[in-house]
Amino acid sequence: MKSALTFLQAAKRSEIADLRRLVLTGALVNAIGRLVHALQRERGLANLYLGSQGRRWCDERHAQVATSQGLQEEVLYAFEQLDTELAPNGHRARLFAGIAYAMQGLSALALLRERVQAQAWSAPRATDAYVRVVSALLAVVFAAADSAWDPEISRHLVAFFNFLQGKEFAGQERAAGSALFASGRAEAEGQQRLLHLIESQERCLQVFADFAGPALAAAWQQAQRPEQLLPLERLRRVLCTSTAGGPLDTGLSQVWFDACTARLDAMKSTEDALASELQALCGQRLRTTEQELADLDRLGGQLAPQSAPQDPGFFDDAPAPQGLPPSLTLGSQVEGSMLALVRDQAQRLQAMSDELDTVRASLNERKTIERAKGLLMAHRQLGEDEAHKTLRQMAMNQNRRLVDVAEAVLAMAAVLPSPGR
Amino acid sequence: MKSALTFLQAAKRSEIADLRRLVLTGALVNAIGRLVHALQRERGLANLYLGSQGRRWCDERHAQVATSQGLQEEVLYAFEQLDTELAPNGHRARLFAGIAYAMQGLSALALLRERVQAQAWSAPRATDAYVRVVSALLAVVFAAADSAWDPEISRHLVAFFNFLQGKEFAGQERAAGSALFASGRAEAEGQQRLLHLIESQERCLQVFADFAGPALAAAWQQAQRPEQLLPLERLRRVLCTSTAGGPLDTGLSQVWFDACTARLDAMKSTEDALASELQALCGQRLRTTEQELADLDRLGGQLAPQSAPQDPGFFDDAPAPQGLPPSLTLGSQVEGSMLALVRDQAQRLQAMSDELDTVRASLNERKTIERAKGLLMAHRQLGEDEAHKTLRQMAMNQNRRLVDVAEAVLAMAAVLPSPGR
Repeated sequence: MKSALTFLQAAKRSEIADLRRLVLTGALVNAIGRLVHALQRERGLANLYLGSQGRRWCDERHAQVATSQGLQEEVLYAFEQLDTELAPNGHRARLFAGIAYAMQGLSALALLRERVQAQAWSAPRATDAYVRVVSALLAVVFAAADSAWDPEISRHLVAFFNFLQGKEFAGQERAAGSALFASGRAEAEGQQRLLHLIESQERCLQVFADFAGPALAAAWQQAQRPEQLLPLERLRRVLCTSTAGGPLDTGLSQVWFDACTARLDAMKSTEDALASELQALCGQRLRTTEQELADLDRLGGQLAPQSAPQDPGFFDDAPAPQGLPPSLTLGSQVEGSMLALVRDQAQRLQAMSDELDTVRASLNERKTIERAKGLLMAHRQLGEDEAHKTLRQMAMNQNRRLVDVAEAVLAMAAVLPSPGR
Repeated sequence: MKSALTFLQAAKRSEIADLRRLVLTGALVNAIGRLVHALQRERGLANLYLGSQGRRWCDERHAQVATSQGLQEEVLYAFEQLDTELAPNGHRARLFAGIAYAMQGLSALALLRERVQAQAWSAPRATDAYVRVVSALLAVVFAAADSAWDPEISRHLVAFFNFLQGKEFAGQERAAGSALFASGRAEAEGQQRLLHLIESQERCLQVFADFAGPALAAAWQQAQRPEQLLPLERLRRVLCTSTAGGPLDTGLSQVWFDACTARLDAMKSTEDALASELQALCGQRLRTTEQELADLDRLGGQLAPQSAPQDPGFFDDAPAPQGLPPSLTLGSQVEGSMLALVRDQAQRLQAMSDELDTVRASLNERKTIERAKGLLMAHRQLGEDEAHKTLRQMAMNQNRRLVDVAEAVLAMAAVLPSPGR
């Protein structure tokens, strides 16, 4: 016959299984992170190569393609290691579907490289293709880790995801600027794109800073060295303020690429630090939970098998306030402490669930804003940054929060005519 | 070697496992629903009994206790049937911890009944004890079903949960009014409580109506027959508008109890309809998903084992807009349709995830409001309905949404002094 203790033990085992799964995805996340870093660099070099009409950066690009290919194999190996049979559940569905899509992207890379080599695709087209592959890979990382259930871990993951996304925008910035400098000509669309990428990047890094603990946020502050940022900011100014159609110094291509690369390499170190912190956090939480299970098992040995606790404590006044452990001295009998344990566990899970909601709510706000932007882009033929500015302007005019305006825009969607009909 | 198809199949199997688990909780949800209904009635009779100082409703109460006890055994049996070993994951943790707590509550019922019998507890104290047991049981239902991942099912669950909670407020209203009528005396605190219960009940039923499909919402509209509502509304008016301290006609106790019971029984029918609709929805989704898996398996047979698709389609223009199936004629080769499948699956999961966020966001708003209310109650020593009114007034004065004001209140929490320190 199952007792309350049986279920408490099962609850602990479930938490442990979740944590173990999360620890296991560490290797996968790591392999993808390294491949993404390599593809970002390969994309930058492809832009330099295409921008210079194939006259320069040919060897560098070839060497980088070889590096990427090696890392591709490692990612495929990590996919191969995943157990597609064990404990299927909804979260795994998203992970597996994401992997299927990413594998298609990896297969398509050969074609992309051949088109770049033959200069058959323009720099923007090649960039867009790389962006798709990278975003398919990042989606796998997000899905792998998104089953986390502990709010502290979730918070860390939000910081991690946003950092990865911010780094990808920084990578796109390197590619876009590389194409401009290498072509020797300032061009309005590319400049707009650059401004947008800088803004998006900063938004992601802001979320990272909001969610990361102070130690990691400080580590990232320190990783950004002024002597690296200064040349980057100068070149950004040159790129963004040159008259459209006017000349750009092609000699700055290499300087730009190096300045951006220094930034991306610093980001990679922070990414690695975030990943190990995450592993450490999971490991620590795992040990605590295993200890709690061991305590429960010991308590199980002390309880008389047929004890039927008619515990008046269940109706005792208000449950202990959050943060304060409920008194374990309740009646000082084993049944009393059993009740305290159960109540403690129920309250802890509730508090975790509340905090998880808070984390999710702030993510949802962002998603709402993104969706409203997408809608404006489709219906009003706006670029992404114009759509963002429009939303922000509406929010300022109406003195409302950005997310409220975004919600209003989405609510209007039903009455707007569909585009192109 | 695992292919994209392997992972697509694994994704489908994961979805299927989730749906099966949800279908299996049907029996548990059903058993708990019946016990809760019985305990709600038992609570009402306990209030009549205590209100009449043990002079009446003794036999009715005894009979109802026997009914409840039978249903208690059924719930314990349903707990016993749960597999506490299989596929542990985070969602199960909440379920199992909830069951452990609910089992303590069921054990404590014997004590509660004995105190009621001996009239050792006041009507409000007994009511509060019943409320705790019922809320522990409802928490199990919420946790059992909360692992749902399909947005249509989630939406249905939100409707279901809110209906159950609304019914519980209706049950508390029956108990509170019973105690008042049976005591023969109007009393300000009880009247306030009644008003609050009516308001809370209506709020829950509004969420139910917002989330339930039009068919179920209409069914509930029809279940509420005017000839049943009319006497209830009249008695509500009598209860709420009588001068505090003044007499109430004890002869109306039975009429009140019957009017409320008619409403609760109608709610139970709607609850049952909601539960079967949920089962039907899960069953239907399960069949579709199993068919999709069979299609994938068949496709696997057609694919050459070593085919390495270098599919340019991956970089083709914009993914198909949501709602439109991506063209399956892409190149009209098996690889082409494979890519379309993968892309379709990835898009579908993304759309599901977005919609799930929307469902969650609206739930989060409610939780934010509840937490802000709790804070106001603690810091300003307000009753629950006063706290709600305060928030509403703030929202009206500032011309902001209730949830925004609630967030502002929570944000202030850090700077407010803790109560009682």
